[in-house]
Amino acid sequence: MAKTQFIDRYKDQFLAHLEKRSQVTEPKNLYEPIHYILGLGGKRLRPILTLMTTELFGGKVEEAMDAALAIEMFHNFSLVHDDIMDDAPLRRGKVTVHEKWDINTGILSGDAMLILSYQFFESYPTDMFKELTKLFSKTAIEVCEGQQYDVDFETRDDVTIPEYLKMIEYKTSVLVAAAMKMGAIIAKAPEKEATAIYEFGRNLGIAFQLQDDYLDAFGDPETFGKQVGGDIMENKKTFLYLRSLEKANKQDRESLQHLYSIKPEDPTTKVQAVKSIFMQSGAVEDAKSEIESYTQKAYKTLRELNLPEASKQVLRQFGESLMQRTV
Amino acid sequence: MAKTQFIDRYKDQFLAHLEKRSQVTEPKNLYEPIHYILGLGGKRLRPILTLMTTELFGGKVEEAMDAALAIEMFHNFSLVHDDIMDDAPLRRGKVTVHEKWDINTGILSGDAMLILSYQFFESYPTDMFKELTKLFSKTAIEVCEGQQYDVDFETRDDVTIPEYLKMIEYKTSVLVAAAMKMGAIIAKAPEKEATAIYEFGRNLGIAFQLQDDYLDAFGDPETFGKQVGGDIMENKKTFLYLRSLEKANKQDRESLQHLYSIKPEDPTTKVQAVKSIFMQSGAVEDAKSEIESYTQKAYKTLRELNLPEASKQVLRQFGESLMQRTV
Repeated sequence: MAKTQFIDRYKDQFLAHLEKRSQVTEPKNLYEPIHYILGLGGKRLRPILTLMTTELFGGKVEEAMDAALAIEMFHNFSLVHDDIMDDAPLRRGKVTVHEKWDINTGILSGDAMLILSYQFFESYPTDMFKELTKLFSKTAIEVCEGQQYDVDFETRDDVTIPEYLKMIEYKTSVLVAAAMKMGAIIAKAPEKEATAIYEFGRNLGIAFQLQDDYLDAFGDPETFGKQVGGDIMENKKTFLYLRSLEKANKQDRESLQHLYSIKPEDPTTKVQAVKSIFMQSGAVEDAKSEIESYTQKAYKTLRELNLPEASKQVLRQFGESLMQRTV
Repeated sequence: MAKTQFIDRYKDQFLAHLEKRSQVTEPKNLYEPIHYILGLGGKRLRPILTLMTTELFGGKVEEAMDAALAIEMFHNFSLVHDDIMDDAPLRRGKVTVHEKWDINTGILSGDAMLILSYQFFESYPTDMFKELTKLFSKTAIEVCEGQQYDVDFETRDDVTIPEYLKMIEYKTSVLVAAAMKMGAIIAKAPEKEATAIYEFGRNLGIAFQLQDDYLDAFGDPETFGKQVGGDIMENKKTFLYLRSLEKANKQDRESLQHLYSIKPEDPTTKVQAVKSIFMQSGAVEDAKSEIESYTQKAYKTLRELNLPEASKQVLRQFGESLMQRTV
């Protein structure tokens, strides 16, 4: 589609930079897994956001390349370590690092990726280096905290909706927000604008993740990309589950709790039963209105940004493409 | 001993700072393991070096505290992840993090520790922040590379002595060297002096690690602290082993290769046989002269430092205490 052509341009530029900057050196067993995971593809959403935001605030795309790379390297670090923790065999349809090599290689290569992320900021002037590095560390520690909450929630039966929202904010949306704020920092935008674009990214990120929860249960298997019903099969406590527990009648609540305590070999009946409770309880409607609410918060921040209308339009289009899953 | 009293003072000051700065916050399952590993004790050698070097170059100990903490946090991060990789049940006589909690907790808490290390530098002025952070990243990536070489060496039978020396330099001594250079940076010492103190630490670190190899085989079980013969039992390719392979006659070499392919239940005879080849081959003498050579390189750098004689004396005393294992 014509309106997302600029995204493809950013992506191509980024991939060229990635190729240039990620050469395999010695020791090979440390750097080959890094090259492998970075080469697996993906939407490159976060680095594209850094490049786009930099340009929208009047900076040069070239200047944003190393920050974009840091963000993408960090994101892939978190995937490598998360895949070990989740014992995941596949990532983007290919074998995960710890399966292709081993767990120790996954741990150590991941560690190196986290350090390399920091090194990419070294090309920036001193003041900007400190600002970017501080934002990066704050974000990185929040991502770890989000991952820990996610792990903790698996064995807790008293998770509240606010706790859940905080978890997805930390685990997913702060990195999107930071990717955009870095663009503002690199373009030397005023602090107020940098904060606003962060808020835009944060709210859009939460909306996106809530939509992911929704699509996991009710999405079109043709276009969703992941296995529809996967969260339900895994007894994953999403917004839909938590809200259903709050709102369902006693019988449905007990039924849902039972369904979330089993993992039948053929999950078809279970998935159908859970989905019907999600709908009956009103949780689906609530999810939709939460998604809408976070999306509107994002657009409200956008309207208040001191940017030319055309630039706001680009960001809004991007948000819309994201929420319609065309990027 | 009176001459190492100043070391105890640094240690006490550091521990007070550590206590103040390492509070357990939410999520507890992320931060409690960090508090646990940092509280297990140890010599606190690296942070002490940062404090001492800062003061010797005319800076204030208080100003060095956060850098010392970053170094100690990083060191403990590497212990947590290395212990997972080595499947080690104990660390400093207590259960390791991944044993007390689980592997996933060890991975994630370790990741958080690495990020927290970077955050401790944020209290420094912008220029100093960049200088410290760059040195830290360079060192951290070398430590990862050293760990990878160490892992690779386990399954290689063509490891050379220069490769081995590079491995121990990266895995152990660059962090000691960086700890000292950070002191020079914080005290605003000239670049030349900062480089020289780095070289002092690097060479002393290599000497220390080579001595560790020697003591592992020939140390006094009463004072060594680790199980004497442990490296031999584990078929660890140390300097003594690699040099023996080079220098031993054909019969001894084949015998050594055989002994390093087995792990008998009672290792007494094996350990004795290996030690006797180490001695017969001349590897023990070579190890001693390598230790002496690196120690002398360190002291030569020390002599060339532009520091008052009394300060050089402190550093020399520290080196001597270290090599006599009284600190």
